[in-house]
Amino acid sequence: MLNEKMIGLGTARSVIRELFEYGNQRAAVVGRENVFDFSLGNPSVPAPPKVNDTINDLCRTSDPVQLHGYTSAPGAPAVRETIAQSINRRQGTHFTGDNLYMTCGAAASLTSALNGLCNPGDEVVVFAPYFPEYQVFIEHTGAEMVLVPADVEAFQIPFDELEARLTPKTKALIVNSPNNPSGAVYSEATVEKLADLLRLKEAEYGHPIYLIADEPYREIVFDGVTVPYLTKYYDDTLVCYSYSKSLSLPGERIGYIVVPDECADSKLVFAACAGAARALGYVCAPSMLQLVAAACCEETADMSVYAENRRLLLEGFKEMGIPCVAPGGTFYIFPQSLEPDDVAFSEKAKSLDLLVVPGSGFGCPGHVRIAHCVPTERIQKALPVFQKLVDLYRK
Amino acid sequence: MLNEKMIGLGTARSVIRELFEYGNQRAAVVGRENVFDFSLGNPSVPAPPKVNDTINDLCRTSDPVQLHGYTSAPGAPAVRETIAQSINRRQGTHFTGDNLYMTCGAAASLTSALNGLCNPGDEVVVFAPYFPEYQVFIEHTGAEMVLVPADVEAFQIPFDELEARLTPKTKALIVNSPNNPSGAVYSEATVEKLADLLRLKEAEYGHPIYLIADEPYREIVFDGVTVPYLTKYYDDTLVCYSYSKSLSLPGERIGYIVVPDECADSKLVFAACAGAARALGYVCAPSMLQLVAAACCEETADMSVYAENRRLLLEGFKEMGIPCVAPGGTFYIFPQSLEPDDVAFSEKAKSLDLLVVPGSGFGCPGHVRIAHCVPTERIQKALPVFQKLVDLYRK
Repeated sequence: MLNEKMIGLGTARSVIRELFEYGNQRAAVVGRENVFDFSLGNPSVPAPPKVNDTINDLCRTSDPVQLHGYTSAPGAPAVRETIAQSINRRQGTHFTGDNLYMTCGAAASLTSALNGLCNPGDEVVVFAPYFPEYQVFIEHTGAEMVLVPADVEAFQIPFDELEARLTPKTKALIVNSPNNPSGAVYSEATVEKLADLLRLKEAEYGHPIYLIADEPYREIVFDGVTVPYLTKYYDDTLVCYSYSKSLSLPGERIGYIVVPDECADSKLVFAACAGAARALGYVCAPSMLQLVAAACCEETADMSVYAENRRLLLEGFKEMGIPCVAPGGTFYIFPQSLEPDDVAFSEKAKSLDLLVVPGSGFGCPGHVRIAHCVPTERIQKALPVFQKLVDLYRK
Repeated sequence: MLNEKMIGLGTARSVIRELFEYGNQRAAVVGRENVFDFSLGNPSVPAPPKVNDTINDLCRTSDPVQLHGYTSAPGAPAVRETIAQSINRRQGTHFTGDNLYMTCGAAASLTSALNGLCNPGDEVVVFAPYFPEYQVFIEHTGAEMVLVPADVEAFQIPFDELEARLTPKTKALIVNSPNNPSGAVYSEATVEKLADLLRLKEAEYGHPIYLIADEPYREIVFDGVTVPYLTKYYDDTLVCYSYSKSLSLPGERIGYIVVPDECADSKLVFAACAGAARALGYVCAPSMLQLVAAACCEETADMSVYAENRRLLLEGFKEMGIPCVAPGGTFYIFPQSLEPDDVAFSEKAKSLDLLVVPGSGFGCPGHVRIAHCVPTERIQKALPVFQKLVDLYRK
């Protein structure tokens, strides 16, 4: 009688959430300092001070009716223009405010874009390992998710596997670089090869194939890695951005979609995203946070903790002999499990109060995700426990 | 190729928005003070000072990682509990935090509830005059909107018309009291009769019929009118609330759904709303605003301006002979147009720089909506222009 699919989505137990809650229960028994919880991808560093300073200034100096009032559905014009110019300065693009649609964060960017683009029967390609909500978002549009298996050597794109899965029904691909959960950043070579392949297939099929770049981790990169800005490589690209990670504001729900002029049917795509946002009940992105995003769009939270945590884990795992592709970005690392069954491996880790998420939930068995957005001290104390886990497999 | 329905929604010209933009153009020509724009339902009184005070306190005293971090999907437990207890104190209900799902405003409340409840082929009953987005929200679920024509005598419920439209496919009804655009508040007698009829039909059809109470205007009432709290009259009620109007925070997108324990399949309905919110891309309601809502949930903006504006308009219209049902609440009044064609009437008003919205867009021709959420001075200066409009019909 009710919508069974929605009941399913509302009652599904999240493996990540269950691990996190188990960690809280264990903490009550053995003490918080003895539980090594790497389950949740929640930024652990504070927003840059300019965020709260901006909020306080706005509350002190703005007309409250304006400050807290509706903006137009795509966002306040000055906010969109400021952010567009900031992207242009940093990425060498040529956007105006008219190319930006402000949203309630990356999830809203994705659902608005997908509902605008897709019709029932369409296919949307996703690359393993992938953020599991993609499937939920895609299927709500009536489209089908088509999964490309992981390139576990480097977490780039396995092009043969991709090509075998492109069909005339392919409406869009979602790429997520830097990637949750692997931390991988697509190289310029990968991006160029992807763009070439998609242009070929567009010509073959006679219709656009849209590339949706889900980029909440763009600002969290290490060792001088750069993240190619995809609109410069492939015209039919939509960028879905969120300030959740760059400004450590995940609860505030603020982000945007970029629809470049060079995108096929650009004006119609923008209208379709706007129409979808409307049908889903997004009236406008939170008004004060729009202004905060514009004021702080060239700031980031202090990412040095993530860099140090990543370094400690990679060096430790190397010494212990845990195979792991070094991530170019994000606050995740994604080592191999020491037995093929990543769920069993995660359970064994759990018996040591080491909480890591099985990769099979991300479409990539044989690996586990470690969210190292935690105090560095927890990493330092966890390394000997990882060693104990390794020893369980070597005894 | 793209989703045509979404393109349609994204490009549709809103009559209200067009009037508002025409007003801005005219203001540039004849001066802002000579344009009498009553098109937009945007609160004109500031949020109560406690809102910005709370924001400043939170920014000064909270851990920013917590303050701006994800809450659980239904909202922060303490926020939900505080608001539940506040409703209980004011309405005599018995909710706990577990009955509340925090949302990004009333539109998100409605889309989450409708997508959770409805399957394609279901029918959702709406009463004219109605907020036009209801149709967009209902049709996105695959359900069909069934419109009950207006009771233009009192804007209560025309029960014969309603009964003729209830079928075994009826999944839900949306009621909006105080009503946009009529300002009408359903009397206790209306609510009791509605509850009786729905219980009868539930028994006849052998399944629940859900009553969705869309209540953003609950706090804006006049002359001692009280708004019955519908869960007390009819078990299978969901309340969709927003702080947009009560706290003058329409841009901040904060509200909630109440799913009472006594509602049929209460736990499943809650899960379905949660699942729908997830599929639509609502990760959580804006985190800081959740705390603001909890701190300010017994405050309201100063509604005395709306009371004075309403009084001036009603008295003026009475003198001029413009027929108008006195609204019990909201910042709208909904007089009859002085010719049957409300669009022609609105055009004639427009020729005098008097901007009022035709009722036909709300499913109620022969009327116009006047949004009196404006400075009282604008009302005072507009009354002679309304008289000029009347004279055009009496010459």
